Amino acid sequence: MTGSDTLLFDRIALIGAGLIGSSLAGAVRRDQLAGHIAVAARSQTTLDTMTDLSLADSTSLDAAEAVQDADLVVLCTPLGAYESVARTIAPALKPGAIVSDVGSCKEIMISDVAPHLPDGVHLVPGHPVAGTEHSGPEAGFAELFEGRWCVLTPGPEADKNAVERVRDMWRRSGMNVEIMDAGHHDKVLALTSHLPHLIAYTIVGTATDLEDDLKQEVFKFSASGFRDFTRIAASDPVMWRDIFLKNSDAVLDVLGRFTEDLTSLQRAIRRGEADKLDEHFTRTRAIRRGVIDAKQE
Amino acid sequence: MTGSDTLLFDRIALIGAGLIGSSLAGAVRRDQLAGHIAVAARSQTTLDTMTDLSLADSTSLDAAEAVQDADLVVLCTPLGAYESVARTIAPALKPGAIVSDVGSCKEIMISDVAPHLPDGVHLVPGHPVAGTEHSGPEAGFAELFEGRWCVLTPGPEADKNAVERVRDMWRRSGMNVEIMDAGHHDKVLALTSHLPHLIAYTIVGTATDLEDDLKQEVFKFSASGFRDFTRIAASDPVMWRDIFLKNSDAVLDVLGRFTEDLTSLQRAIRRGEADKLDEHFTRTRAIRRGVIDAKQE
Repeated sequence: MTGSDTLLFDRIALIGAGLIGSSLAGAVRRDQLAGHIAVAARSQTTLDTMTDLSLADSTSLDAAEAVQDADLVVLCTPLGAYESVARTIAPALKPGAIVSDVGSCKEIMISDVAPHLPDGVHLVPGHPVAGTEHSGPEAGFAELFEGRWCVLTPGPEADKNAVERVRDMWRRSGMNVEIMDAGHHDKVLALTSHLPHLIAYTIVGTATDLEDDLKQEVFKFSASGFRDFTRIAASDPVMWRDIFLKNSDAVLDVLGRFTEDLTSLQRAIRRGEADKLDEHFTRTRAIRRGVIDAKQE
Repeated sequence: MTGSDTLLFDRIALIGAGLIGSSLAGAVRRDQLAGHIAVAARSQTTLDTMTDLSLADSTSLDAAEAVQDADLVVLCTPLGAYESVARTIAPALKPGAIVSDVGSCKEIMISDVAPHLPDGVHLVPGHPVAGTEHSGPEAGFAELFEGRWCVLTPGPEADKNAVERVRDMWRRSGMNVEIMDAGHHDKVLALTSHLPHLIAYTIVGTATDLEDDLKQEVFKFSASGFRDFTRIAASDPVMWRDIFLKNSDAVLDVLGRFTEDLTSLQRAIRRGEADKLDEHFTRTRAIRRGVIDAKQE
């Protein structure tokens, strides 16, 4: 089942076809990981786009129809839709089917999805840590996953064979796969991804509220620093709204730490404490080296 | 004097040779903007590097020696050195010489430099808004300025010819040049550059304080969001320490606005206000379009 030219799944169903869903479809197609790709989405336009891009073998506006006979079902919707999707697909799932996802929070699979699944269906939550600021099926590309990390949070009682097959799918899509506890994942990502996005959304909002002439200059002189924040803050609003609501405990915790640290630097600036600033900025430079060594740049 | 194959200056002197100083030397060399490039720096290693890169015609550890007979002197040191450099070079400046700089704050030229300059010397403060997270003379490259904005803040009584010559130098280095009030510049940059850097330094510091195992994971999963912050927070510590100290009023002002906005989003997350988050994130997406339209991406 792990050979590079063997089908991993006869039929997979993608529920939702945004940036990640369409990129996954592209990787599955490119590497011939499944015999049939069924796609469900809320809009016919999205489904038509997936068909036009040859990324769907069958499409449906009804998620229950899409998951019929599927060996693997992958939720690719915003987190806020998980519970209703789980309710919808549960009666139509094939015995022994694997249910996975690509969402940025993982405890939600335990809270919002697992309770609705019938016995004999295997839950293997997943999070391919990759993305761009673009959204929608046209924004997808199979190479998005190349060299990035994918976290799976199957829990101790998960079916080993099911975990192995999901792991293989992401590996063959180019990712490094790591198994982790769902709660731990949500804490790590709160810091590395959710907090940075919240901050970027905030500072870009602060700029939006400026008077018009100042705002034009903010655009002009964005080369240094601000530009990176605007890119992050251009990410999909609904996706991010749901992440903050579904991972609110971990986000509010790291936000508290961040605010303490920011207040401390603010105090150092107000009091003119050069040594303290110097020491802090020198220390942060080293962590960049860590990121480069971890090959995430 | 503005012809593209005419020397703009017989002799220019660069005080300091980090990323910006060496990039400027590279552009001056490439476009033959000056007959002679004199470079002063605090370390012989830096001077030797500039000589090896053919970016200096003469070098000196003494800034006063370097500025002798120079038509244009450009301060390229951290802001904290401006006052002592101004005191050092003042007696050696040629009558009619232009004194400019490349610093990220502009009121400092009025407060720390202007009082020390002799009569008959022209002050034309400048800020090429361009950079990378790398430092030192080896990090420089002449193309750094291409298509970016350069702000000049000469003040109403400045010598028009002197302003024109400095403007020409940056234009011929590839920049768009804008004239602005120094205080206004410092406010705009506090938001577009200084605050983003402060925030990036803070969040990367927050991560540095985590337990070791969590820290390793922060590196691994930095692909989404955090990575951009680590890049910003790898910028030169001394340069940034000085920016925050020298532009503290404007930085503390925008920091106050930012903190208010962040607290408001924090409250929305804690109270589960989906509509409020949705509305905010949708609004910030538009400003990205503004940045792209302003060609800073």
